[in-house]
Amino acid sequence: MKIARTISELKENLKEFNGTIGYVPTMGALHRGHLSLIESSKKDNDFTVVSIFVNPTQFLPDEDFEKYPKNQEADTRICEVAGVDLLFLPSVDEIYKKSETTIKANEKLNSILEGAFRPGHFDGVCRVLNKFFNLIKPNNAYFGKKDAQQIAVVKNMVDSFFLDVKINPCEIVREADGLALSSRNTYLNEEQKLDALKLSRSLLKASNLVKKGETESKQIIASIKETLEPLKVDYVAVVDQNFNEIEKIELGNTIILIAAFVDKTRLIDNIWI
Amino acid sequence: MKIARTISELKENLKEFNGTIGYVPTMGALHRGHLSLIESSKKDNDFTVVSIFVNPTQFLPDEDFEKYPKNQEADTRICEVAGVDLLFLPSVDEIYKKSETTIKANEKLNSILEGAFRPGHFDGVCRVLNKFFNLIKPNNAYFGKKDAQQIAVVKNMVDSFFLDVKINPCEIVREADGLALSSRNTYLNEEQKLDALKLSRSLLKASNLVKKGETESKQIIASIKETLEPLKVDYVAVVDQNFNEIEKIELGNTIILIAAFVDKTRLIDNIWI
Repeated sequence: MKIARTISELKENLKEFNGTIGYVPTMGALHRGHLSLIESSKKDNDFTVVSIFVNPTQFLPDEDFEKYPKNQEADTRICEVAGVDLLFLPSVDEIYKKSETTIKANEKLNSILEGAFRPGHFDGVCRVLNKFFNLIKPNNAYFGKKDAQQIAVVKNMVDSFFLDVKINPCEIVREADGLALSSRNTYLNEEQKLDALKLSRSLLKASNLVKKGETESKQIIASIKETLEPLKVDYVAVVDQNFNEIEKIELGNTIILIAAFVDKTRLIDNIWI
Repeated sequence: MKIARTISELKENLKEFNGTIGYVPTMGALHRGHLSLIESSKKDNDFTVVSIFVNPTQFLPDEDFEKYPKNQEADTRICEVAGVDLLFLPSVDEIYKKSETTIKANEKLNSILEGAFRPGHFDGVCRVLNKFFNLIKPNNAYFGKKDAQQIAVVKNMVDSFFLDVKINPCEIVREADGLALSSRNTYLNEEQKLDALKLSRSLLKASNLVKKGETESKQIIASIKETLEPLKVDYVAVVDQNFNEIEKIELGNTIILIAAFVDKTRLIDNIWI
């Protein structure tokens, strides 16, 4: 595996690639969720590039940028074992200049759910991904469905900017007990992990309600909120794949989303129905 | 000369190009200023692409989007005679989607001079050029120095986004009497054209003052404002090439800029010293 720590090293390495490039953008603290993205990329492409970059512009001032889990040595080994071709580890100073042209994520997506609770977050996601897409020029990029709204935001940017990259959403990877994998799970102690299970359990219950014939979003949301108690909930929502809230479940076109806190750790989860 | 009226036609034609691409973005109503950009592109590159697209997002609501001069037939012939390889004439509907990811031009440049008097103008310029750069993937792009601040805005975007295009500023082309060529000059009647000459004359006078040893921006600005009377002036400014206002002329790093109205027509001009 090649490692590029600067943009010129990246470009030097990319020159050698002759074929399709798959790209997995990450903030490190890699887990099996990331591995499944890397596997998908390896299956579809001739070369797989992974970036590890804790992007400052997608954290709000009161969020966990400083304490976000970092473990470059372990992450590097994981990428090597997973068969990554090129690992890109740039510095913040090389990615961001002092006075920049910036990006505003799609206004509608920016104003609802994650966009409303984390104002500016998606702008930062777009800023960094547009840079990385332009630097790496991947044919395919891989994103976990856990960040469902992020996928919609990124797809909108790709369409608006006429970027030549296909966005590939990949299934959520879960622990055996149902907990969706997340780098932020490392913040949880054992007791908090039990509380965190309320998210996946409430979604499983919702999915079973739908299987039994429930079609009213209101009923689904009420059931989920009941299961989540006493967690502090940012939102529970039922939307179609364009992130329009829908009153009735549309099979094949529905995402049920949750954001809730376990103590000070904010977790999100969702299910595509 | 090939003509592409849709993105798929553009891509089809670009596939045939094997070499460096020079790109001249225009809003049509072509004049000798544009011709000089095309000449520079032909000199530097294997292929030259010109786009004609009156970009709605760079006009303010009260500006002249509707009446902006359009003459596609003449423009097409001019491009053909000038030896353009590919002319791109897309529709607004294909370039802009309903709900987009947008761009904010560099905050400092957006807040001064043209940015201050035309809020949102540079955001629209960035939006459309980012799209066209991504669609055409030019090695070089050519811009007239008349829109000096635009060049700084576009260079900042190219740096921020890591776009693989070199921005080439080209000299202002003037009528024999000094009037800087502009598509908006067609709005002027003969009497107004005489008034419009005050802009280039005041800059010539300023340049002569500098040659005689004047170094104080304040004196230069006073002289220009006197010459411009009785035109309505938006601004007269002395800046360095990073668009910082400077109190003393720095030879080789100074731009003197004017925006003024002749009747209802807003004109800009500048001189690089």
